[in-house]
Amino acid sequence: MTIASPIFKRVDNGGVATITINNPPTNLVDRAFVVELMALVDTLSKDEVTRVVVFRSAHTDFYVNHFDMSGVIGQPSSGEPRRGMSPLTALYLRLSQLPQVTIGEIRGRTRGAGGEFALALDMRFASQERAIFGQPEVGSGLLPGAGGTQRLPALIGRARALEVILSSDDYSAEEAQQYGWINRALPDDELSMHVNRLANRIANFPAAGIKHAKEMVNAATATSEVLLTDESERFQVLMKTPEVANRVKWLLSQDAISGGEVELHLGAALARLAEQSPPHA
Amino acid sequence: MTIASPIFKRVDNGGVATITINNPPTNLVDRAFVVELMALVDTLSKDEVTRVVVFRSAHTDFYVNHFDMSGVIGQPSSGEPRRGMSPLTALYLRLSQLPQVTIGEIRGRTRGAGGEFALALDMRFASQERAIFGQPEVGSGLLPGAGGTQRLPALIGRARALEVILSSDDYSAEEAQQYGWINRALPDDELSMHVNRLANRIANFPAAGIKHAKEMVNAATATSEVLLTDESERFQVLMKTPEVANRVKWLLSQDAISGGEVELHLGAALARLAEQSPPHA
Amino acid sequence: MTIASPIFKRVDNGGVATITINNPPTNLVDRAFVVELMALVDTLSKDEVTRVVVFRSAHTDFYVNHFDMSGVIGQPSSGEPRRGMSPLTALYLRLSQLPQVTIGEIRGRTRGAGGEFALALDMRFASQERAIFGQPEVGSGLLPGAGGTQRLPALIGRARALEVILSSDDYSAEEAQQYGWINRALPDDELSMHVNRLANRIANFPAAGIKHAKEMVNAATATSEVLLTDESERFQVLMKTPEVANRVKWLLSQDAISGGEVELHLGAALARLAEQSPPHA
Repeated sequence: MTIASPIFKRVDNGGVATITINNPPTNLVDRAFVVELMALVDTLSKDEVTRVVVFRSAHTDFYVNHFDMSGVIGQPSSGEPRRGMSPLTALYLRLSQLPQVTIGEIRGRTRGAGGEFALALDMRFASQERAIFGQPEVGSGLLPGAGGTQRLPALIGRARALEVILSSDDYSAEEAQQYGWINRALPDDELSMHVNRLANRIANFPAAGIKHAKEMVNAATATSEVLLTDESERFQVLMKTPEVANRVKWLLSQDAISGGEVELHLGAALARLAEQSPPHA
Repeated sequence: MTIASPIFKRVDNGGVATITINNPPTNLVDRAFVVELMALVDTLSKDEVTRVVVFRSAHTDFYVNHFDMSGVIGQPSSGEPRRGMSPLTALYLRLSQLPQVTIGEIRGRTRGAGGEFALALDMRFASQERAIFGQPEVGSGLLPGAGGTQRLPALIGRARALEVILSSDDYSAEEAQQYGWINRALPDDELSMHVNRLANRIANFPAAGIKHAKEMVNAATATSEVLLTDESERFQVLMKTPEVANRVKWLLSQDAISGGEVELHLGAALARLAEQSPPHA
Repeated sequence: MTIASPIFKRVDNGGVATITINNPPTNLVDRAFVVELMALVDTLSKDEVTRVVVFRSAHTDFYVNHFDMSGVIGQPSSGEPRRGMSPLTALYLRLSQLPQVTIGEIRGRTRGAGGEFALALDMRFASQERAIFGQPEVGSGLLPGAGGTQRLPALIGRARALEVILSSDDYSAEEAQQYGWINRALPDDELSMHVNRLANRIANFPAAGIKHAKEMVNAATATSEVLLTDESERFQVLMKTPEVANRVKWLLSQDAISGGEVELHLGAALARLAEQSPPHA
């Protein structure tokens, strides 16, 4: 069974659904991505055949990228910030609670809301050569707004989570492995085989045990919905500030001028941006 | 002072009790193991002289092995599944709360309920050459039922705990060290010396500080008794399913035919078993 | 702007305050240290310009050392032990909640209450050649009394925290990095550059995002004030025991006789002390 889809291309085989994410040019988390992911999560939540879902990217340079900020510029900043848990946070929460086992096979940049997508998966395996991780929100004047401030410290501890989030910098797969951000870094030419073998292995095990084990581990590591909501609301408040709009405008214009260099080297671009802004503004 | 015992052979020296576990042929967690461990925990809970307890194995290939499943086959599956926290889970909880410091000196396979025994100890040091770790329950149609779904994610994080538990695969001491599953992997010929030195060092420190420090760390990392009970009850439900009985029968028969190869290479055996079963059954 | 101070020498530059800690001869946590740190935390809590605070030591052999125990000897042990959260624990709690980002640049020994100071910082980077970590309280008959029993297991897990605390032994920067006790170990001649670059990078980011991100990570990893108080009170009880006074006296006299060798090699000194005391006293 193969279901074609503009962004999430799904191929099923023996209880394993392999989803190839294709949202050119850089796999941004935009409106279409969110709508399709909602539909996929709906479908999977009722699927009693699929045991394991593997998420890989159609692009070697980008796994799942940050939130699409192009809509932020020029938006009226009037009106109260949105209250409650954001739709994206709620979607990632549902993703993390699916009855299936979800595995990220990560090549390319995995940043911002894309990094938070990866954090909502059950496991993350990454290419030593191609994977790059970063939460660039603080460098843009924001904070991670789709679970990152909660799931990252739970995985890697307070100090390393603060470093990653506050530095807004790029991290290699090796560093991510050492910090416990990912399960394991693998040579690029072994990554798919490793993930496929693991996915097929689990998919052949009885469904009831998989379901109960995941539910109990989820219970042991539950993220607070109160704090996720708090994070969403703080994100919405900051999104209304001119500081964020100005920074995003600068990043988008520099990316256009440079032919995409900002997206490729966002950690370095944020440092250049910061140096241009007076720190005590 | 030496107390002879069929399974737990204890030698005391200077505040350190060294227990050699000997339940041939493969150190299964069976009825006798549980009864003797209960008695040992009772004794230690009233012992004001012993400061440190080291658990090692009499067998080089097995540390503490999984639960003895031979009794499962042919048992009537009638009757309601047992409710409440299982006796084994309650025993491991008491083990983790002993006033003594407990250290695992781990050589050989450490799996299932034996892996959960190790997780209930205060520290785990393992032989690089000889230690192998695994939670094979999901591959048998079960879930870890004696604390594994709670203590493992607390130690190694949600993603690596899900990988270990859902894969039901074998992990080396090096991998276990990298994941934080054990304190440290050591060359086999240095392991006993390292553990002995640490045990004797701690045993010479004043008892009150040891007791208070352990109690406060236990308070900081307490496992939920509600979730431990939930895990016990889910385990009992799955134990009543024909799927588990069939898988256990296959494993036991293959082990007998192969002269014990299944126990030695359980991770690989579970993959062969899984391939024989239709995944969507 | 440069504020001179007997112990905390502060230099400000571009939103980064660099504090050099100088409490000769060994940077003990004594009354003067606590009083000055209280004033510094008060000042920073109202400072809306400073974004990042770096703490380094004026001494290559000591970062922040343990609590000054010289006052303990000869003190009347009459009277009830003090109740409630200790002033030092409350101070470290406020330190961990500052709106600024706090970074430890660690060279030299970092032990006891000094280790707990480091644990209350947001990040810790340490010299591979010069940093040494230890919580020597249990070896002195105490338990860590300024948050160590709570913050250490949250960072490195129950088993490694119990090992570190109960062994009271010295750990290298490499070991601390592997356990997750510090963010990273770096060659001594790269350490300052690494920390400066990170501090300046963060200081150029907008303050609101920094503040919200830190608050949300703090919320995700909050330490229980009830348990911190419990730890304080247990520490006060043990401080009244003759066992602690005798051990501290021995350590101080040996340090004086040896010209400071006990402070340099405290892990080894605690083993010698322990061997002199009958374990079952």
